[in-house]
Amino acid sequence: MGTKGLLMVISGPSGAGKGTVVSELIKDASFRLSVSATTRPPRDGERNGVHYHFIGSDEFDKIIAEDGFLEYARYCGNCYGTPRAQTEEWLGEGKNVILEIEVQGYKNIKKKCPDCVGIFIMPPSMEILEKRLRGRGTEDEATIQKRLKRAESELKLAQNYDYIITNDSLEKCVSDVCCVIRAEELRPNRSG
Amino acid sequence: MGTKGLLMVISGPSGAGKGTVVSELIKDASFRLSVSATTRPPRDGERNGVHYHFIGSDEFDKIIAEDGFLEYARYCGNCYGTPRAQTEEWLGEGKNVILEIEVQGYKNIKKKCPDCVGIFIMPPSMEILEKRLRGRGTEDEATIQKRLKRAESELKLAQNYDYIITNDSLEKCVSDVCCVIRAEELRPNRSG
Repeated sequence: MGTKGLLMVISGPSGAGKGTVVSELIKDASFRLSVSATTRPPRDGERNGVHYHFIGSDEFDKIIAEDGFLEYARYCGNCYGTPRAQTEEWLGEGKNVILEIEVQGYKNIKKKCPDCVGIFIMPPSMEILEKRLRGRGTEDEATIQKRLKRAESELKLAQNYDYIITNDSLEKCVSDVCCVIRAEELRPNRSG
Repeated sequence: MGTKGLLMVISGPSGAGKGTVVSELIKDASFRLSVSATTRPPRDGERNGVHYHFIGSDEFDKIIAEDGFLEYARYCGNCYGTPRAQTEEWLGEGKNVILEIEVQGYKNIKKKCPDCVGIFIMPPSMEILEKRLRGRGTEDEATIQKRLKRAESELKLAQNYDYIITNDSLEKCVSDVCCVIRAEELRPNRSG
C-alpha cells in the first residue's frame, strides 16, 4: 500500500516564472514544496521558513558535514541546499515533492536520485525574460545583467532535463506540468 | 518547421478496450490510426480498409519480401502487419500515428523505432476482461478461452511498455493517453 511520491525538480532562469508555476501546483494537496536553505539575504517580502530557510555560512557548513542536504550548490555567490529529512518524509507519505533549484543542483540530484523528474521552465524569449526581470524592480542593474548572462548559459542546459515546458501562458504551463506528472505516474516502475 | 509526429503503439489484451480508446483518440485531427494488414477473416461488421486490410497469405508474404511492413507478427494463427509507407507519410506531416498492435509487434517496432511510445491498456481485472469478451458475443468458447489464456501471458509483458494505463473508465483512460502524448511532446529530443 501507499505509492511513493514523485521527486520533481523544477528549474529555469530567474524570471521564467518558476515561482508562479510552483505556487499554482502546491494549491493541490498532493504536492509539497521543499523549502531550501540559503546563505543569501532575504529579498523584500521573503519570509524565513516559507521562501527559504535563511541561515549563515557556518550553519550551512554544519548541515553539509552532517549529510543533511540532498544536494547543495553555490549560485551567484551564495549557497543553496535541499534539506534531506523533510523531503524523504513527504515522499514516503506519497506526496509529490517539488524542488525549485538551479541547474547545478539538478545535476547533483539526478546523480543521487535518477528517478527524479527534471522539468525545465523555459521563458518564451530572452526579451520577455529581461522584461520580467526588470519588472520585478527588486534587483539593481548589475544583478539583472548577471542574471541575464546566467540565463543564457542555463538555457543551453535545458536539454539535460526530462521535460522542457515553455511558460508563455501560466495556465498552459501548469497544465503541462500536471500532464508530465500524470504520465510519470503511469510508468511501469512507478506503480505498485 | 514541422515537428515530426509521434509513433504510438497501443497494446493490451483483447477485451481491455483498446479499440474504444483508439476510436476516441482519432476524433482529434492530430491523430491517425494505422490500418494493419491481416490474413485473418473479417469479423461481423469489420470493413476492409477501415478495421484491417484483409489480404491473403500470398499477398502478405509479397509485402514482407518488399520490406513493406514496419513490423509483422503471427498471433492466434493469423498474420498481422503494419504498412510502412502510410505511417511514415503521416509522421512526416506531424500527425501522431497510432498502431494498435499486440505485444510481439511492439517488441519488433521498439527495436526498429526506439523513439516510439508504447502504451499498454490494462483491464481493471481478469474477471472484467472475461465478462467483456463474453459480452461481445462474436467468438466461440474455444476462442474466448484462447484469448483469456493469451491475455494472462500478455499482462506479464506490460512492464516492457513505456506506460501502463488501466481502463476502468473510458474518459479517464483517454485523458491519461492524452497526458502521455503531451508529456512526450515536451521531451527535449522531440521538440525542434
